[in-house]
Amino acid sequence: MPYDYQLTVGSLLKQTVYRRGTGEIVYGKTRYTWSELFDRVNALASGLDSIGVKEGSRVAVVDVDTNRYLEMYYTIPMMGAVLHTVNIRLPPEQIAYTIGHAEDDVVMVRDEFLPLAAKIGAQIKSVKAVVTMSDSGIAPNSPLPNSHYYEDVARSRSNYEFPEIDEDTQATLFYTSGTTGLPKGVSFTHRQLVLHTLGIASGLADSAVRMNSADVMMPLVPFFHVHAWGFPYLAGMWGMKVVLVGKYEPKNILENLKNESVTVSDMVPTILNLVLNHPDAHQYREAFSRWKVIIGGAALPKELALTARKLGITVMAGYGLSETAPVLTLGTPKDEFRKLPDDQLLDQVLLKAGVPIPLVEIRVVDADMKNVPRDGATLGEVVVRAPWTTVGYYKEPERSEMLWSGGWLHTGDLASLDERGNLIIKDRLKDVVKSGGEWISTLYLEDLLTHHPAVLEAAVIGAKDSKWGERPVAVICFKPGTSATEQELLIHLQRFVDEGKIAKFWLPAKILISQNPLPKSSTGKLDKKPLREEYLNILVK
Amino acid sequence: MPYDYQLTVGSLLKQTVYRRGTGEIVYGKTRYTWSELFDRVNALASGLDSIGVKEGSRVAVVDVDTNRYLEMYYTIPMMGAVLHTVNIRLPPEQIAYTIGHAEDDVVMVRDEFLPLAAKIGAQIKSVKAVVTMSDSGIAPNSPLPNSHYYEDVARSRSNYEFPEIDEDTQATLFYTSGTTGLPKGVSFTHRQLVLHTLGIASGLADSAVRMNSADVMMPLVPFFHVHAWGFPYLAGMWGMKVVLVGKYEPKNILENLKNESVTVSDMVPTILNLVLNHPDAHQYREAFSRWKVIIGGAALPKELALTARKLGITVMAGYGLSETAPVLTLGTPKDEFRKLPDDQLLDQVLLKAGVPIPLVEIRVVDADMKNVPRDGATLGEVVVRAPWTTVGYYKEPERSEMLWSGGWLHTGDLASLDERGNLIIKDRLKDVVKSGGEWISTLYLEDLLTHHPAVLEAAVIGAKDSKWGERPVAVICFKPGTSATEQELLIHLQRFVDEGKIAKFWLPAKILISQNPLPKSSTGKLDKKPLREEYLNILVK
Repeated sequence: MPYDYQLTVGSLLKQTVYRRGTGEIVYGKTRYTWSELFDRVNALASGLDSIGVKEGSRVAVVDVDTNRYLEMYYTIPMMGAVLHTVNIRLPPEQIAYTIGHAEDDVVMVRDEFLPLAAKIGAQIKSVKAVVTMSDSGIAPNSPLPNSHYYEDVARSRSNYEFPEIDEDTQATLFYTSGTTGLPKGVSFTHRQLVLHTLGIASGLADSAVRMNSADVMMPLVPFFHVHAWGFPYLAGMWGMKVVLVGKYEPKNILENLKNESVTVSDMVPTILNLVLNHPDAHQYREAFSRWKVIIGGAALPKELALTARKLGITVMAGYGLSETAPVLTLGTPKDEFRKLPDDQLLDQVLLKAGVPIPLVEIRVVDADMKNVPRDGATLGEVVVRAPWTTVGYYKEPERSEMLWSGGWLHTGDLASLDERGNLIIKDRLKDVVKSGGEWISTLYLEDLLTHHPAVLEAAVIGAKDSKWGERPVAVICFKPGTSATEQELLIHLQRFVDEGKIAKFWLPAKILISQNPLPKSSTGKLDKKPLREEYLNILVK
Repeated sequence: MPYDYQLTVGSLLKQTVYRRGTGEIVYGKTRYTWSELFDRVNALASGLDSIGVKEGSRVAVVDVDTNRYLEMYYTIPMMGAVLHTVNIRLPPEQIAYTIGHAEDDVVMVRDEFLPLAAKIGAQIKSVKAVVTMSDSGIAPNSPLPNSHYYEDVARSRSNYEFPEIDEDTQATLFYTSGTTGLPKGVSFTHRQLVLHTLGIASGLADSAVRMNSADVMMPLVPFFHVHAWGFPYLAGMWGMKVVLVGKYEPKNILENLKNESVTVSDMVPTILNLVLNHPDAHQYREAFSRWKVIIGGAALPKELALTARKLGITVMAGYGLSETAPVLTLGTPKDEFRKLPDDQLLDQVLLKAGVPIPLVEIRVVDADMKNVPRDGATLGEVVVRAPWTTVGYYKEPERSEMLWSGGWLHTGDLASLDERGNLIIKDRLKDVVKSGGEWISTLYLEDLLTHHPAVLEAAVIGAKDSKWGERPVAVICFKPGTSATEQELLIHLQRFVDEGKIAKFWLPAKILISQNPLPKSSTGKLDKKPLREEYLNILVK
């Protein structure tokens, strides 16, 4: 008799719809309120139902960040179907692999990806219908059979009613590309998404950026990438104004920042770098002064943080991974730290990856799963428990078992903890260099190398060494019109040895100069795999 | 293999313990941090275990708001036992009834309640042990068998380990006194308490008081009353500084407000009135200027809100009930309302009971369960669904069925909704006067009567009328040294008829003057039951 309340994606939106939320969703010239979004969600569900999307169906989305993507974030899970957010930066054959592996029933495709879809379409047997999308407002010519146009589908007016869904129903699925092997599927349930949303709401309200519903959000983490860190669901729950920018063009980002009075964004450091290095950046000082930026996906380099703060931007780091929905920690200065002067706050809190948000349990452990001391130095692997961790990799029982070894989710990240429990990410377990039995943090070396005025980017990898097992080798790329010798770079690093920041044996055995930008992964992070392959034997040859 | 994360009371505290939270808990001269509280929680659990508290045990607490009560809020549910928060303002035989009905195994008693406990002890067969508590630091002489002293119990150092608990395990139990019959038991599970905490965290961060963990909390809703509205659990999750005041003495409240830099409190209007009317209140202007007050339990009278705001206090109303853990709505000005001038903000948002916090569904319905229009006038019953509603009354299947009639929890409150969905509570269904088939809101009439400068309090009840069924009768009590005639009070009300605020037939058929303060319930709310009994036939006699 009592109502058995289930935590579902639809329940996040109910309050905003109830309030007839007037917070706007903006994408280019398209502009409407959350109430109108909900009307479109209803119509889209009805249309998708009529082309065969049922409970348990898998619906792949191949799109950049548009208002339609936001609609699908709600519609597809609310129908009891699974939203597969396709990583459009993967190579075509890997995209085909993920759609095939997921056994998607319907694919939603932005017009620019139709040629790609045509190319891979034949390989995928499960797909029964295609829905095309376009910013032009006109149905694109589809090279695929059983194609429908999104705006036609979303114009349906049958009497569709959303089903009652159990909170443990699968809601989302996406693929994360490891350093080796094929992408792995990671999925989340309705319950996990709702709890993640509540967790980040509390965490962000409490964090250094003090976020609330009056903020204007411009997500700069792609919608295909780990729920855009949960921002689309948080925006819906709070009925916030959301500004979507499609593809990430720096000038367009800057214009939206200014014209739409944006106050908060999430992004990887690469994007912030891109925006701040745009030649017109100096024209946006006023907009910068109200911009709060949450950095994740990679460590926040101090130089970048300082540049951002000089421009008036509030920056803060967080930490999470694909397998954890993703947010685990946020920069949350507590107690006496709130009173610190700006530069000390940066060093002692904001550059670190933060502390767990509510309900997240984090440990940094040695090989025996014992906690390392909180001394800011001892390295260990980060292991976690949270109500929003994936149960495992889709259809991969062995990898799932490894992920959850000992009942804790293994992040594969190496970190230390300061006295207050602030997480300091030092490296990926797979990237770390092990020299004479001791760990060398490649991330930290890279950060120190980029402190040199001539260095644009740096990658440190482990190369085989007959004596030490591995020795660090750096690959760097200079800023346009600058350069330095290997000797000068070593002198630069020696300073940090003298200051006690790194041990002498951390100095790279070799520093190589790359004429091209360093390789990046599909999510814009430094990809050291090709470098490792190329230079693995450079010291022993 | 993946960790099956359960939403438990213990999980709320983990993050704060992890951070070694230095936010203080203050009670009189006692002062320690959340980390130390956690140590005490561990020791107390070990001690309670040794005197027989096991999973499923029921532990009654008879205390005012002390640091020990806060410790028990965590310890008892974390042990898998049930925390029964005894309403110390009930008459002794009703207290005995609730402890007997709950079949409590252990009772924790503050020294001043020991005589009461001795009196009712013989009636209760289930109690196997008693733990005495005292502010004196000395074990009181207990008149009861099997008595232990709290600080001895909390000094235990055995190797107790908290059990892993399923989130659907019962965590709390308390009794709510209806207008008729015996108190009803209302219970909540771990999951419900955790979701309620996350819901109010997001709701309060987003509300007019913009609360976050940097706030200093002084709860002024008793710990025995509906989880003190969830503040003790929110404080733990955020590691906030908490100031506890024991019994509610206005001067002590004012001193704590000032000396401990308190910034936020929750309370019923009666307490705010009490504090602001203290002769020394004017000496606390500076402390008032940083005080954010959340009002619930009864409508926030406009006069009181204006007085508070004149003193610099930020006030806001919320709404909830015992059966809903309690919070359902909070004053949350959105969009254009944020820009309203102060006085209009009060009228249009803050005096209303607010909008649902995340995940709460609210409807205002007529007798056929159809939504009433959002016109700010049409009355209906408030019905709700939320992840933190009680499943029913303890051991009372029939009343539980009525509570959940039609799959919605029936609040028994009459309200209207404005265009934005702000809830305007007009009356209790059982208090409303039905005259000639039309509803008359007694709450609203009472509010208008207290606008008269001579009126301290007013109660309006329905008296039998041969022609109209019922007619409203007002009972009022004057401020010291003031008075007015019935005729003057009717002229005062006639003004609101002329302004179109109330209909002519709402004017009371009689206005009676009471020489004594009007009767109050155990939670300090106006209790109209004795008045109704006394004056039911006053018009027909």
